[in-house]
Amino acid sequence: MSEKAQIDVCFSPFLYPVYEKEGQIVVVIDVLRATSAICTAFQHGVEKMIPVATVEEALVYKQQGYLVGAERNAIAIEGFDFGNSPYSYMTDKIKGQTVVITTTNGTQAIEAAKNAHAVVIGSFLNISALCDWLLKENKSILLLCSGWKNKFNLEDTLFAGAVAEILSKHQAFDILDGALATKYLYQQAHQNPYKFLNYSSHKERLSAMGLKDDIKYCLTLNQTNVIPVLQGKYLVLK
Amino acid sequence: MSEKAQIDVCFSPFLYPVYEKEGQIVVVIDVLRATSAICTAFQHGVEKMIPVATVEEALVYKQQGYLVGAERNAIAIEGFDFGNSPYSYMTDKIKGQTVVITTTNGTQAIEAAKNAHAVVIGSFLNISALCDWLLKENKSILLLCSGWKNKFNLEDTLFAGAVAEILSKHQAFDILDGALATKYLYQQAHQNPYKFLNYSSHKERLSAMGLKDDIKYCLTLNQTNVIPVLQGKYLVLK
Repeated sequence: MSEKAQIDVCFSPFLYPVYEKEGQIVVVIDVLRATSAICTAFQHGVEKMIPVATVEEALVYKQQGYLVGAERNAIAIEGFDFGNSPYSYMTDKIKGQTVVITTTNGTQAIEAAKNAHAVVIGSFLNISALCDWLLKENKSILLLCSGWKNKFNLEDTLFAGAVAEILSKHQAFDILDGALATKYLYQQAHQNPYKFLNYSSHKERLSAMGLKDDIKYCLTLNQTNVIPVLQGKYLVLK
Repeated sequence: MSEKAQIDVCFSPFLYPVYEKEGQIVVVIDVLRATSAICTAFQHGVEKMIPVATVEEALVYKQQGYLVGAERNAIAIEGFDFGNSPYSYMTDKIKGQTVVITTTNGTQAIEAAKNAHAVVIGSFLNISALCDWLLKENKSILLLCSGWKNKFNLEDTLFAGAVAEILSKHQAFDILDGALATKYLYQQAHQNPYKFLNYSSHKERLSAMGLKDDIKYCLTLNQTNVIPVLQGKYLVLK
């Protein structure tokens, strides 16, 4: 008898070694805003992206003539082409290009998980396409929340819960405790995720910076069918 | 203007270094069953306990004539005096004694946090006494869930939420994302925590071993007013 595929959630890139397991698909989540920005970039025609962990690496690419997005602490770093607002990637200038990206949390999570069986980018913007693909793959799934500087955050947790909820409606997975908790939270939140995130640190941080539109857009379901996956050092379309 | 004291939750001892901060009180949580057993032991007259991380250390104490509790994977280890069932500590033989204890998760969390400003033992059994004391101390609080082998678990999360809920009703804390999530979960669960934990891994594990009474007891509020705190290598009453 074959075992059921599992769904679990890892709440911090720092904790990833504890959850690392052969053969599982890792969904990297940084809904505010890195993975939402990545999905948007692919939707708008980018050919490849190169996620890098440090600003120094990003700078080397910039000097080689690449288009580069660089963000730290929610602020686009001066001298680069983009930050991590999805809106900044809604432009023809990325069409067919290879774009490098480094962010406070999301690209660290990609780096942590890079040796997994498969690494895929998740956001509310591509949630249905992502879940359809995960169901077809029928493998154990680890939902890896990027969090904030290795700490737990509420918005990535909520997205993990949305995925756990959708997947478990379609197929009998073994839902482990982390996924169970996020699913319960999503059931509480799904009618108004924006309101549910009131009091969460990063929503407050972004709101204070006048980025409410970014938050709202990043919480919008199904704006695109792209499924960005890691292939060597590149993110490419599945 | 002084900053508000914070409440945050760390979901794994492995993640503790990320949450370590000067001056905060760390509440160690392993409701099924280590911290429930520790509270019960103090309630029944133990004078001191010595939490140790490994079975080897526990064995050295045993050979020196100490009473020793030792559990791994929910099973009491043969040759020792107790496991980590609270019921096993409801005995006169511990009165006035120093009891050594090692468990799969709880004593690892104590070990991780041992250099904190204060380390205190939390369980549903002593929750009101604990919260009263925390309110009096008026310091930032980290609720440290022991989890299961460094992974997230639902029952410790639930207790963290109960504490966050009680404390935030009495005083204006700065509730960080981890605490916010646990608070929302507790609000969903509080009318029937036993049922809420259906499908959680450790409840299933203990139930399969015939330990439903242990689970129910460990989810019972306010059986004791003890507040065990770490003092050097000892747990003693506050």
